[in-house]
Amino acid sequence: MGVHRRQNGYTVNFCVDSHNSLGNYVVDADGNRMLDTFCQISSLPLGYNHPDLLAVARDPNNASVLAARPALAMYPNMDYPEKLENLIQAIAPRGLKHMTTMMCGTCSNENAIKQAFIRYRSRERGGNPTEEDLSSSMLNEGPGSPSYSVLSFDGAFHGRTFACLSLSHSKAIHKVDIPAMNWPFAPFPRFKYPLKEFEKENRADEDRCLAKVREIIAEKKSTGSPVAAVIIEPIQAEGGDYHASPYFFRNLQQICKETESAFIVDEVQTCCGATGYFWAHEAWDLPEPPDFVTFSKKLISGGYFFKEEYGPKLGARIFNTWMGDPPKVLMMEAVLDVIRREGLLDLTRTSGAHLMAGLEDIQAKYPQHVRNARGPGTFCAIDVVDSGVLAKVASNVRDKGVLLGTCGTNSLRFRPALIFQPHHADILLDTLESTLQEL
Amino acid sequence: MGVHRRQNGYTVNFCVDSHNSLGNYVVDADGNRMLDTFCQISSLPLGYNHPDLLAVARDPNNASVLAARPALAMYPNMDYPEKLENLIQAIAPRGLKHMTTMMCGTCSNENAIKQAFIRYRSRERGGNPTEEDLSSSMLNEGPGSPSYSVLSFDGAFHGRTFACLSLSHSKAIHKVDIPAMNWPFAPFPRFKYPLKEFEKENRADEDRCLAKVREIIAEKKSTGSPVAAVIIEPIQAEGGDYHASPYFFRNLQQICKETESAFIVDEVQTCCGATGYFWAHEAWDLPEPPDFVTFSKKLISGGYFFKEEYGPKLGARIFNTWMGDPPKVLMMEAVLDVIRREGLLDLTRTSGAHLMAGLEDIQAKYPQHVRNARGPGTFCAIDVVDSGVLAKVASNVRDKGVLLGTCGTNSLRFRPALIFQPHHADILLDTLESTLQEL
Repeated sequence: MGVHRRQNGYTVNFCVDSHNSLGNYVVDADGNRMLDTFCQISSLPLGYNHPDLLAVARDPNNASVLAARPALAMYPNMDYPEKLENLIQAIAPRGLKHMTTMMCGTCSNENAIKQAFIRYRSRERGGNPTEEDLSSSMLNEGPGSPSYSVLSFDGAFHGRTFACLSLSHSKAIHKVDIPAMNWPFAPFPRFKYPLKEFEKENRADEDRCLAKVREIIAEKKSTGSPVAAVIIEPIQAEGGDYHASPYFFRNLQQICKETESAFIVDEVQTCCGATGYFWAHEAWDLPEPPDFVTFSKKLISGGYFFKEEYGPKLGARIFNTWMGDPPKVLMMEAVLDVIRREGLLDLTRTSGAHLMAGLEDIQAKYPQHVRNARGPGTFCAIDVVDSGVLAKVASNVRDKGVLLGTCGTNSLRFRPALIFQPHHADILLDTLESTLQEL
Repeated sequence: MGVHRRQNGYTVNFCVDSHNSLGNYVVDADGNRMLDTFCQISSLPLGYNHPDLLAVARDPNNASVLAARPALAMYPNMDYPEKLENLIQAIAPRGLKHMTTMMCGTCSNENAIKQAFIRYRSRERGGNPTEEDLSSSMLNEGPGSPSYSVLSFDGAFHGRTFACLSLSHSKAIHKVDIPAMNWPFAPFPRFKYPLKEFEKENRADEDRCLAKVREIIAEKKSTGSPVAAVIIEPIQAEGGDYHASPYFFRNLQQICKETESAFIVDEVQTCCGATGYFWAHEAWDLPEPPDFVTFSKKLISGGYFFKEEYGPKLGARIFNTWMGDPPKVLMMEAVLDVIRREGLLDLTRTSGAHLMAGLEDIQAKYPQHVRNARGPGTFCAIDVVDSGVLAKVASNVRDKGVLLGTCGTNSLRFRPALIFQPHHADILLDTLESTLQEL
C-alpha cells in the first residue's frame, strides 16, 4: 500500500475507517469491526467519534482556530490565557501551578529537561548566564554547554528524538545506529508476582535500584557530569508494563531532593485517568509535587507542568514556533468535561477491577500460557509465558475481533479508552481465554 | 497576563483576535488592525481566515478525523495512503518520491538525521545491525551508538530539541546552559552588498566556506566521528537572513557526494513558495535532488522527503505515536489548491520584485539607517545599520499598523503570506520609510 511504499510503513497494522468507527469499536478498511483495547497506542480518551468531540470539530466558531495556527509564545489568541488558566485549575497535579503546552510527548520531555538544566546551571552559577557562558555555548563548548546528564531507567521509554532516545532503554531497534548522549541509566524494579507472596523480595529489589540511583548520581557528580534531572515513568509501558511501588517513587523523589536533581515524572502514557487516578503519581502520596509532570496522548495536547522555581527567568529560552496547537486544547477541554460529567474515573476503576479479576482467573486456569496479570485501573497487562507466541496470541485475538497491544518482549497490554465498560472487559476476557484454549 | 504568569511567556508580543483577523491583516485583542508581514513566524500560507481553509475546518466530513487522532504508522485512516500519494505527486521536489509526515519542523529534522545515520552505518557495516550493535546500543555505547556527527553552519537554526539545538548557531540565549552534542559547524558565507559590486569577494568567501567544510569533514573522519550528514538552510533566516549562491549549494552537494555525507536541505521556513519557487532549492539547478528536504510552517504539516536509498530497511526505526496529524494534511491540500488556482507563486514573484525595488529605493535614500536589502520572492530582509535601534524600528512600524519580524542582530525580515500583493508592499514600504524619517 501507499504508506508502505512511500514512507517507512512496515509497522502498519491495518487501515481504519474513521467514519464508521464508534466508541470502543474500530472498523477497518474491509469493514471488520473490532473491540479496540489499544486505542491508537493508548491515545484515545473517549474512543472513536464521541459526540462531544465531533461537536467541537463541527462548531463553526472554532474554524478560525483551525484555519490559522498561531505562534503561541508570540501571538496567542486572546482567549488563550484564560484557557490555560482554566486547564490549570481543572487538571494541575496538586501543588503545581505552571504549565506549558507542546506538540507531543517527546517535545514535552525535551523541554522539561531543558528547563531542568537551565535551573541547575543557574543555581550553580548564582544567576543569569555570563558573557563566557553565552559565547562558549555558541561553540557547543563548556561552560556554556555544560556536560550535565539526565538519569533514566533500564526499560524506560521517553520518546525518539536524539535526547529522548538516549533516555530510552526499551528496545534496541529504536536505538541502534543513532549516536547517543552519554547519559546513565539505573535498574528499574522487576517485580515478582503475585505481589503478596513476594513482598520482601520486591522491596529488596526496589532498595537495590534506589541504591544504584544514589551510586550513579554520586559517580556522575565526581566525574564532572552531574545528574541535573531524573526522569521516570509511573509504569514502564513500552518497555513491558513494569511497576514499582509508592515506596520506590517517594524514595526516588527524596534522593532527587537531596542531590538537587529535578524529579521529572513522564506521564505521557499514564495521564488522564487510565490508572484510575487522573495522574498516576497521585497514588504515591508524595510529600510534595514532582518538579515536572509531562503529558500527551489521551490529553490530546502535549505539555508539562512544573514548579515555579523551574521557570526560566529570561524570555526565548523555552520557545518554538508553535508551542502546542490550540485545536488540541479545545478537544482537551471537551474530554475533561465528559470525564467529569460521566464519572469516567469511577468507571475506569470499576472496569479495571473487573478486568483484573478476569485476568487473574485466566492465569489461574492457564498458568502454562500466561502469568503476572497486573495493573491499576484499566492500565493492565499480562505476560505470555512463551515470548515466541506473543505475536501469534495478539494476532489470533485480533482475528476474533479484539484489538490489543503488546509491549516489552512478552506482554499483552490493554489501553482502552476511558469509556471502556465491564461488559467490554468480558468480551476481551472471553476472547483471550478462547485463544489460549486453542494454543 | 495568564500566558506570562503561567508559562514562560516573556516573548508574547500581543494577543490576537482570530475571528476578526482577515487575509493579510491581523487584529489584536484591543481591536488594532495591522498589516501582518510576519504571519505567525512565517507560518501562515494564506493569511487569516481564508475561505478555503475555513471550509475544510467546517466540513462535517472532516469531523471524525479531527476527533480521533490516529497513530499513523500503525493504524492510518483508509484514505491516508492515497492522500500521501497525491501530496507526493503535487509537491515532491524533482526526483524525490518518498515522504513522511511529522508533527513539526524540528522533529522532521531529528528524524531525517536519524535516517541519515542509519544509512551511513548500514553502508559502513554492509547490512542490518549485528547482535553486538543491538546490545551495545542499549547501553548508549559503540558500536551500536556510533560517534558520528552532523555538520551545520555558523548562524544556522534547525530547531530547539537537544540535537537540533546542537546544530543551531544563531543565538546564544537559545543554547546556553543546555548540554550539546559535540558536532562541528562551518562558516556560512557573509555576502557583501550590492551583489554586483562584490561578485569577486563573495565568490571568494563562498570558496573559503567550502574549503572549511572539506577540512572539517576530513578532520572528523580522521578522529573517528565521521560526518554522516550536512544540514543547511537555503537562506539562514533566524540567524539573520544570510544568503549564498547556487554555486555554493551545488559545490556543497558535490562535497557531500564525495564524502558520502547525506545532504539535508532544511526548508522549514523556505518551503511553500515564499521565495518565488515552491522549494527554494529549485533555484540552485542541482544535478540531482538533495538526499533529504525537510518542511513545516507554511505547509502546515511537518515532514520530509528523502531518496529511496535512505529509507530504513526494517520497521519501527522511524516511528512515533502520531507521525504527523491528518487534519494538517487536509489543510495542506487546500493550501496547495489555492496556490495553484490563484497563481500565488507568480503573485509572490511580482509582489516580491515590487517589495525589493522599494527596499532598494529606501536604502538609497536612508543609507545612514538601512542597507543590504535582499531576498528572492517576498522572502526579503533589510539590515538596520545601528543594531541598537532595531527593536525600536520594529516597534515604531508596528505602532503605525504594520507587523514585521526581526532576525539575527540587526535585520528586519519580511515573511508575508502568499496572498501578499504589490499594494500591501506599498503600505509596508511607506510605513518603513516614514519610520526611518523620524529616527
